Amino acid sequence: RNGRVDLSHGSGGRAMARLIADVFHAAFDNDWLRAGNDQAAFDIAAGRMVMTTDGYVVSPLFFPGGDIGKLSVHGTINDIAMAGARPLHMSASFIIEEGFPLADLCRIAQSMGEASRAAGVPIITGDTKVVERGKADGVFVSTACVGVAPAGLELSGDKARPGDTILLSGSIGDHGVAVMSKRENLSFETEVLSDTAALHELVAVMVEAAGPAIRLMRDPTRGGLAATLNEIAHQSKVGAHVEESAIPVAPQVAAACELLGLDPLFVANEGKLVAVVAAEAADSLLAVMRAHPLGRGSARIGEIVADEHGFVQMTTRFGGGRIVDWLSGEQLPRIC
Amino acid sequence: RNGRVDLSHGSGGRAMARLIADVFHAAFDNDWLRAGNDQAAFDIAAGRMVMTTDGYVVSPLFFPGGDIGKLSVHGTINDIAMAGARPLHMSASFIIEEGFPLADLCRIAQSMGEASRAAGVPIITGDTKVVERGKADGVFVSTACVGVAPAGLELSGDKARPGDTILLSGSIGDHGVAVMSKRENLSFETEVLSDTAALHELVAVMVEAAGPAIRLMRDPTRGGLAATLNEIAHQSKVGAHVEESAIPVAPQVAAACELLGLDPLFVANEGKLVAVVAAEAADSLLAVMRAHPLGRGSARIGEIVADEHGFVQMTTRFGGGRIVDWLSGEQLPRIC
Ligand SMILES: Nc1ncnc2c1ncn2[C@@H]1O[C@H](COP(=O)(O)OP(=O)(O)OP(=O)(O)O)[C@@H](O)[C@H]1O
Ligand SMILES: Nc1ncnc2c1ncn2[C@@H]1O[C@H](COP(=O)(O)OP(=O)(O)OP(=O)(O)O)[C@@H](O)[C@H]1O
Ligand SMILES: [Mg+2]
Ligand SMILES: [Mg+2]
Ligand SMILES: [Mg+2]
Ligand SMILES: [Mg+2]
Ligand SMILES: [Mg+2]
Ligand SMILES: [Mg+2]
Repeated sequence: RNGRVDLSHGSGGRAMARLIADVFHAAFDNDWLRAGNDQAAFDIAAGRMVMTTDGYVVSPLFFPGGDIGKLSVHGTINDIAMAGARPLHMSASFIIEEGFPLADLCRIAQSMGEASRAAGVPIITGDTKVVERGKADGVFVSTACVGVAPAGLELSGDKARPGDTILLSGSIGDHGVAVMSKRENLSFETEVLSDTAALHELVAVMVEAAGPAIRLMRDPTRGGLAATLNEIAHQSKVGAHVEESAIPVAPQVAAACELLGLDPLFVANEGKLVAVVAAEAADSLLAVMRAHPLGRGSARIGEIVADEHGFVQMTTRFGGGRIVDWLSGEQLPRIC
Repeated sequence: RNGRVDLSHGSGGRAMARLIADVFHAAFDNDWLRAGNDQAAFDIAAGRMVMTTDGYVVSPLFFPGGDIGKLSVHGTINDIAMAGARPLHMSASFIIEEGFPLADLCRIAQSMGEASRAAGVPIITGDTKVVERGKADGVFVSTACVGVAPAGLELSGDKARPGDTILLSGSIGDHGVAVMSKRENLSFETEVLSDTAALHELVAVMVEAAGPAIRLMRDPTRGGLAATLNEIAHQSKVGAHVEESAIPVAPQVAAACELLGLDPLFVANEGKLVAVVAAEAADSLLAVMRAHPLGRGSARIGEIVADEHGFVQMTTRFGGGRIVDWLSGEQLPRIC
């Protein structure tokens, strides 16, 4: 009707059933969805499972290098991957504003379907709610994912120990800058693209190579690398010491950050990971990461140190020292 | 700050970490959350798992008999239970409007925590996003749940066969009427309360008693009993025949429906289930359902018939016949 979502699409009637079949089932394309039950079933072997969820409210919905759909698949897979686990299946819950263009909804669903197929993680169950015009902002998506962790591997934020090495899988700031430049209508000579990517295959080769020498992994999303390092320090009751010159930032991202008044340390990433690893395993793991397409820009950025205050310290490019605190205030709302 | 959620609560900084710890972790209270990792892990035996998700956008957030928090726990557990499965763990993703009162957020989180503890289904992982004032409506919650299905039991919407009996676990219309009466500021002599409840324990005794004689179960939420019967007819390529006089409707719900211009057949329920069972097992199963606190009002409401058109037919209270179609249009937006 007029090519827009209306309230009947969320009412439990025939219009909803059609929207789900024509837009979502068509795009996600698997037999679990086609079965049309209230839940989806799958067989599993005994072992350790992991579960996670994220909501996505990014604005704008489409940005250079990605869109809310791709993000909602990659981001949630990444939180599973950060346990060293293999993601198996996802769910997707949509909250849609009345009047939202069906063409945009299809584009988002198609993008999710592609991302999920590329990752090998089917979206097996979902939900669709519609709220009145002005009661949401286009579309919000919440995805959840389950996966299996390899036996004997228990990565956790509290496992960093003084002397451990901190590795980063590539340049920081790309995602946040891509979204902000679209939002602010900026254009740069070299367009900055979101780094949105599913990291589970990179993680699989890392786990295979280094196993339990990996203490923990984390994806530096909201709050950026700074938040991730502070979380690790806080959870593990240690400090961290990083070298600014070792942290990769693409020149166009650095330039955009200048212009936008952002510090790349605090800007969200959607296709990068931080790994804390036993020092003796760092070199060989770094080589493995660099050999993977999503880890080509990997770098050793610093180390874990003993510090009862849990400070994250940085040696700046000019040789000075600086404490890297959490982001305070509201630097970048709705970046993911 | 002013007792309201602000954008910094969603930014990945210290304010967000505090909100999550003080409001959500305090209310949900389990070690998975306290571990503070990007995902939560649990051990499982080999078998058949089920997964589901629902979003909750009910307006108003608090209504007679429940609130969005309780609903978001019960509703998602129920979709797991409809597979005959035992729910294990949940996730919860919050999208919060800037300015939302922290006291209300706490109340919702507490209510979720209580519901999850009462059901024995911990909320082990979550997410918190904040959007600008006017870009959401208070708070939206999306929950996902995983569970385990008993070996050999494969309930599915396509398994209804002519001759099967249709059972309903109690009166219909309560939830939708409770929400609508609050929304429309109506008061009745006898207040109508939402029937929101977690049905997995009722389901467990049903499965124990009747096992594979149960063809399928479904909770008649959005679109009400009418939608559920039509879905079953459509999936199983059969018809259904129900007796209006056999379908329990509380007198105050019937009266409120008159006043509000609603047909209880189309009104959402949040603590009821429909079971299609082999005829020979119906009597004993009905007795088992009636012996459970959440199935006290159970009734045999009709049977599955052969019908290539998939019609749901009803013998009315006055002995006439009527076809019960899907809900068309937008009878009850944001009822769950
Ligand atoms: N956006 C979506 N993407 C993929 N599948 C979806 C989506 N929305 C709904 N579905 C699927 O469609 C079917 C019907 O979903 P629906 O939400 O109506 O079921 P329900 O959760 O039992 O009902 P309710 O949400 O009213 O409680 C389910 O199989 C569900 O997984
Ligand atoms: N509303 C909530 N209820 C319960 N736990 C929550 C809630 N929000 C977040 N959490 C938990 O807090 C921790 C941090 O969550 P956060 O969302 O910051 O992690 P993340 O998903 O890795 O980051 P991002 O969402 O930026 O991608 C996780 O353990 C998460 O499960
Ligand atoms: Mg259901
Ligand atoms: Mg995340
Ligand atoms: Mg649903
Ligand atoms: Mg993460
Ligand atoms: Mg449901
Ligand atoms: Mg999150």
